[in-house]
Amino acid sequence: MASIKPSVPKGTRDFSPAEMAKRNFIFDTIKSVFRKYGYQQIETPSMENLSTLTGKYGDEGDKLIFKVLDSGDFLEKAASIKKVQGELLNLVNQALATDELLKEHLNAFKVQKGDDFEELYEIFKDGMSTMINSEEQVIGLFKTYLTSKNIVSEISEKALRYDLTVPFARYVVQHQNEITFPFKRFQVQPVWRADRPQKGRYREFYQCDADVVGSPSLLNEAEFVLIYDEALSKLGLSDFTIKINNRKILSGIAQVINKHDSIIDLTVAIDKLDKIGLEGVIKELLERGFTEADIEKIKPIILLQGTNEEKLVSLRQALGNSEIGLLGCAEIEKVFEYIAACKPLGAILELDITLARGLNYYTGAIFEVKANGVAIGSIGGGGRYDDLTGMFGLKGLTGAGISFGADRIYDVLEELNLFPASTDQSTQVLICCFDAEAEAFALPLLQQLRANNVNAELYPAGTKIKKQMDYANNKQIPFVILIGTEEMQSGQLSIKNMQSGEQEKLTAEQVIAKF
Amino acid sequence: MASIKPSVPKGTRDFSPAEMAKRNFIFDTIKSVFRKYGYQQIETPSMENLSTLTGKYGDEGDKLIFKVLDSGDFLEKAASIKKVQGELLNLVNQALATDELLKEHLNAFKVQKGDDFEELYEIFKDGMSTMINSEEQVIGLFKTYLTSKNIVSEISEKALRYDLTVPFARYVVQHQNEITFPFKRFQVQPVWRADRPQKGRYREFYQCDADVVGSPSLLNEAEFVLIYDEALSKLGLSDFTIKINNRKILSGIAQVINKHDSIIDLTVAIDKLDKIGLEGVIKELLERGFTEADIEKIKPIILLQGTNEEKLVSLRQALGNSEIGLLGCAEIEKVFEYIAACKPLGAILELDITLARGLNYYTGAIFEVKANGVAIGSIGGGGRYDDLTGMFGLKGLTGAGISFGADRIYDVLEELNLFPASTDQSTQVLICCFDAEAEAFALPLLQQLRANNVNAELYPAGTKIKKQMDYANNKQIPFVILIGTEEMQSGQLSIKNMQSGEQEKLTAEQVIAKF
Repeated sequence: MASIKPSVPKGTRDFSPAEMAKRNFIFDTIKSVFRKYGYQQIETPSMENLSTLTGKYGDEGDKLIFKVLDSGDFLEKAASIKKVQGELLNLVNQALATDELLKEHLNAFKVQKGDDFEELYEIFKDGMSTMINSEEQVIGLFKTYLTSKNIVSEISEKALRYDLTVPFARYVVQHQNEITFPFKRFQVQPVWRADRPQKGRYREFYQCDADVVGSPSLLNEAEFVLIYDEALSKLGLSDFTIKINNRKILSGIAQVINKHDSIIDLTVAIDKLDKIGLEGVIKELLERGFTEADIEKIKPIILLQGTNEEKLVSLRQALGNSEIGLLGCAEIEKVFEYIAACKPLGAILELDITLARGLNYYTGAIFEVKANGVAIGSIGGGGRYDDLTGMFGLKGLTGAGISFGADRIYDVLEELNLFPASTDQSTQVLICCFDAEAEAFALPLLQQLRANNVNAELYPAGTKIKKQMDYANNKQIPFVILIGTEEMQSGQLSIKNMQSGEQEKLTAEQVIAKF
Repeated sequence: MASIKPSVPKGTRDFSPAEMAKRNFIFDTIKSVFRKYGYQQIETPSMENLSTLTGKYGDEGDKLIFKVLDSGDFLEKAASIKKVQGELLNLVNQALATDELLKEHLNAFKVQKGDDFEELYEIFKDGMSTMINSEEQVIGLFKTYLTSKNIVSEISEKALRYDLTVPFARYVVQHQNEITFPFKRFQVQPVWRADRPQKGRYREFYQCDADVVGSPSLLNEAEFVLIYDEALSKLGLSDFTIKINNRKILSGIAQVINKHDSIIDLTVAIDKLDKIGLEGVIKELLERGFTEADIEKIKPIILLQGTNEEKLVSLRQALGNSEIGLLGCAEIEKVFEYIAACKPLGAILELDITLARGLNYYTGAIFEVKANGVAIGSIGGGGRYDDLTGMFGLKGLTGAGISFGADRIYDVLEELNLFPASTDQSTQVLICCFDAEAEAFALPLLQQLRANNVNAELYPAGTKIKKQMDYANNKQIPFVILIGTEEMQSGQLSIKNMQSGEQEKLTAEQVIAKF
């Protein structure tokens, strides 16, 4: 075993110091903006009760939940195993009884010497076929009971968090008496999904969510736009689009064509406009049972053009007297108004009527963020949902939230070369010593640097200077102080800028003042 | 289900905003000190291959590893299930064959009309008992194969991290070609243990580890003491003891009494001095096979008194000509010398010859940290281990490391009331509006505050001021700005200090200057 190179489970990753520095830059930036807008951090356990998670993500989602095996002798208490084992025991007991019975009959026959062989033959046949039948039944039970689907809930009562939303809903219901509403929380933790791993899709990845529950104000929606704008701008992105839509507008469109029940079909189709074009959308709408007349009414709505204000004007006309549709327009308008009152955005804010995003959740605003000029999916999304905590029995609590896709943001910043040169908060200066004497000389300086909050290291003596310099280079330490006989005598330290190669002689005080 | 109050799995915890603020204070402080000493952060996946973890923590440890159920149809590929199922099928086939055979014999008997009934009887008996035998064998197989111990490796190939040390060793071996040695890494991540939960012992908890591999210099040991000292002082602790020992000294003691092989017995016994006193230790040593003569030699070593320097003098005498023991003394002395050259400690540094701490790992220095005056176990520990990566096939790489017990530090700071008043980095000021007009007036101010990096919130309009003030109180927001008609007309804002109750009138600029 020792010779096999160790590895990590597929779909999971190690993060090196360089990667961690970049990831921390992303997380710290997002967290600081969340805090600035009044969101507070919580954490929930990595494991939730399986019953908390199942049934919340659809059948496909349920399959992707990682289950944790119960500790101890998990099979001991598995009902299905017990059941089959019990049937096997019955089988043996039954066989023994049959054996006994048949022996009796045989003995009786032997005593009577072949009185009625036909009867014996029948009894024998029945006995054997009962036994064979039972054996076949046990195999049937084995196949029926000992399935993964049956066994899983018997040997696993916990599962790894699949997202941050359901645990948050659980948290709010569980702690409702300790919480001051509106409750603005953010959460940055890993989630796990048993998805097939592929480029950019991992089995463990971080989610960064901010949600508010208990406040219907559209100021929250406006602030989510501001949060996206501020956080992504701080991360260095200059060209990105925040798309906004409203579920009520989509309901309005369905109302206009009198197809309230087909809203899912409608939105699934128009959501694809980007990918399959207008022709494709029309084809799909026809397949999904919409009429040519419906499509005539929908088309101008899908093809809305112009500024957000122009779109809203056209939309109001097209929505006619759909009350819910017009309410959606008013909501969007109010959000725009709030944003305008606050500050100009760095992002492009775009009303996109084709935006649906897992519509089932959302009841009001829907958000999605894209980095322009990079071939990558959305880097953020969210919306308002009126019944988040209903699944845990707490009704009528409205919520809204957004999420940042940290892994994709990482890839975008990497591709656009936007990471600052020094995301790394690590060592700023390395002291290199020629010998043990120099090391002893250097220790007070080392501690003086640290006392002044300079991240400093001393390379332990007894190593060639070349190797010490390599260490500084590999670790991207910007400055190196060299200490040899001359430096000890003069008290003038040689400090080298590793980037420029420049070297100067400074006193200890001057060195400290540099940082 | 909806009416059942949701909960978290036993031994796991939710962390509220107030708790997170305190936890972040601890983690951020420790991380900043790790960084100051040149340690860089890495992260490893929560799940490791089961084979990476098993056999590393002893049999008891292995039982406490949380295993993750394979996704998909995990039973389908379980060899034990297949085996038993196959045997069941064999059983049926065998029964059918026996049935056939017996029928033939019966038919033959029928034709010959009772020629040799004794023979038929024997054949029948054999056939039946073969069948019963097979059934009993299947039950045996069922019991033998379908055990938790057998099945676990067939249905689970991944497990949750049990500590940070083994994943780190795996990381070093896996990435050895990308790493610059000495490699100084820190890691702050949760670990999971299927321990019986109890006060202060959780199934999910964070570890904060710093380790260096590839550097034998005792400067590392000295810096670990400095890291403990600086981090715990920064956290507000003023009375704590850093205990240090050296495995080589323990080996020396064993050598003095010619019991090299009994070093574990020896250290397990003397490690208990604190708890069971000298009498208890002597009793235990006798039970473990040490002679009265041995104990006479050991006693003065166990009872070492005085300053660290005095202890070292006595120790050298007692260790006589034990080469390894004297080397241990020299190492400790060098560590003390390094520390003295750097700076005076806030902590008490104590040479404690009875300190052993999972001795099997350590080959040199051993550390343990205790908060004095608080009835709680150690809040940190570590040491040097000469063969960390050997378990993954990379031999001869020396390492040393320490760990902070974050949960215990939390409890200590709570008990001693040492958390700073504002660990919380959340909202600094809340703007309260009497109506929608005031809200509109307040938005530019809100954004101005945020532009100046003030964490600020506006309570959405339409709520009674009393409720808005309650919100500020519950969230411990230190300042509240009230905006009503008067404020809008005069431009003078009322700002209230929520702690003191003091209220003043300031312009927007003056408000911003306050923060």
